Amino acid sequence: MQRHFDTQMQELLQKLVLLGQTAEAMVGLSLRMLLERDAKIGDEVSAKEMEANKLQLEIDDAAVKLTATHQPVASDVRFLFMASRIASELERIGDQAINICQCALQLIDSPPMKPTIDIPVMAELSRQMVKNAMQALSAHDCTLAEKVFEQEDKVDDYRDQIFRVLLTYMMSEPGTIPNALSLILISRNLERVGDHATNIAEEVIYLVKGRDVRHLDAQHKRANDSSIFRKAPSVP
Amino acid sequence: MQRHFDTQMQELLQKLVLLGQTAEAMVGLSLRMLLERDAKIGDEVSAKEMEANKLQLEIDDAAVKLTATHQPVASDVRFLFMASRIASELERIGDQAINICQCALQLIDSPPMKPTIDIPVMAELSRQMVKNAMQALSAHDCTLAEKVFEQEDKVDDYRDQIFRVLLTYMMSEPGTIPNALSLILISRNLERVGDHATNIAEEVIYLVKGRDVRHLDAQHKRANDSSIFRKAPSVP
Repeated sequence: MQRHFDTQMQELLQKLVLLGQTAEAMVGLSLRMLLERDAKIGDEVSAKEMEANKLQLEIDDAAVKLTATHQPVASDVRFLFMASRIASELERIGDQAINICQCALQLIDSPPMKPTIDIPVMAELSRQMVKNAMQALSAHDCTLAEKVFEQEDKVDDYRDQIFRVLLTYMMSEPGTIPNALSLILISRNLERVGDHATNIAEEVIYLVKGRDVRHLDAQHKRANDSSIFRKAPSVP
Repeated sequence: MQRHFDTQMQELLQKLVLLGQTAEAMVGLSLRMLLERDAKIGDEVSAKEMEANKLQLEIDDAAVKLTATHQPVASDVRFLFMASRIASELERIGDQAINICQCALQLIDSPPMKPTIDIPVMAELSRQMVKNAMQALSAHDCTLAEKVFEQEDKVDDYRDQIFRVLLTYMMSEPGTIPNALSLILISRNLERVGDHATNIAEEVIYLVKGRDVRHLDAQHKRANDSSIFRKAPSVP
């Protein structure tokens, strides 16, 4: 019975890893669609979304069944709840890739806008965050999970920088507004990819150290600042 | 033992309801901050965020402990996994309210922009979606849950309409670009509030009917359309 349980736990972890790879691939493909101006790549992303959705439901289902059937010990129960939450984060990373494809479609239809600015660098960084968070989960590696937090700060810097540059373009050349808007929305989607990866990294820290670091960031900001509201970059 | 379990399940449900009310209040307050141009309201939202974060962690913790200690039957296990996922949706609704406050802060600092367009209507609708989804959960009311799906379509319509109008402003009067951008981002945050409420409504359907309707929307779109990528509204 225990052996059967262990096998099923392994299978569940493998599905989670596969879902992570699918989500990561979706982010990579959505950026390729943007850069190569190839709408067909959107179909690949859409096919992968179906896989991701299916995997998420299977993971949730397996987690509930394993819990109900095997009455596992507290640490396994905690892992199973976490698996369900991580599956949800990964599925949403896929949703962000779909949103990026929708914006990319707008951009493909209009004359090429020269600067994609730092979007490719930001996209690669957020894709890496997903990869690192999932590797941290597989290897129970807190150092790698903490690297994801550092990468999140960089992603936020790129978001602000991209916003500033595009705002300048829009103000000086109103013809660029529709394309610049699409790029701003893409950068927000990438920011959210990074947020989901950060949530996964927080779960890993909890799993390994038993210390819940979720929301510590908000509390930290609160302790250091009378207002948690950072100003978004203003017009240069 | 069973009675103790039932009491604790009730307590968990009450916390979930309280978290729902907190999230809903945060959305309402963030809009008041925007309309009344009162930065102090942001502090209230920020205080409520701390409450929401705390509640989410307590709910997760209670769900794991109840599962590990009482070895509940499958339907209760399913409910407990769902409670953890719903808590996560609600906490994110609160995050969206924080994002709205950040954008509102930008708008407060600049001269009033006359049209807040349909943002107040869209905000009220998304707040209602959260309320309906949580009432549907408490009352096991699938009809109300399905109403949330209809409201989601309306929220998407508002998002598109607001985008179109603001794009026209930006193109014709570049001085409005920074404020119009903040309003576009606010409308996207409200859209996400609606998305989270929809996710909760889907969980309610699953809870009551045992039928998992998550992702059915994506599958439906796929069946009816060769591409899932809807075009965003273009420049009028």
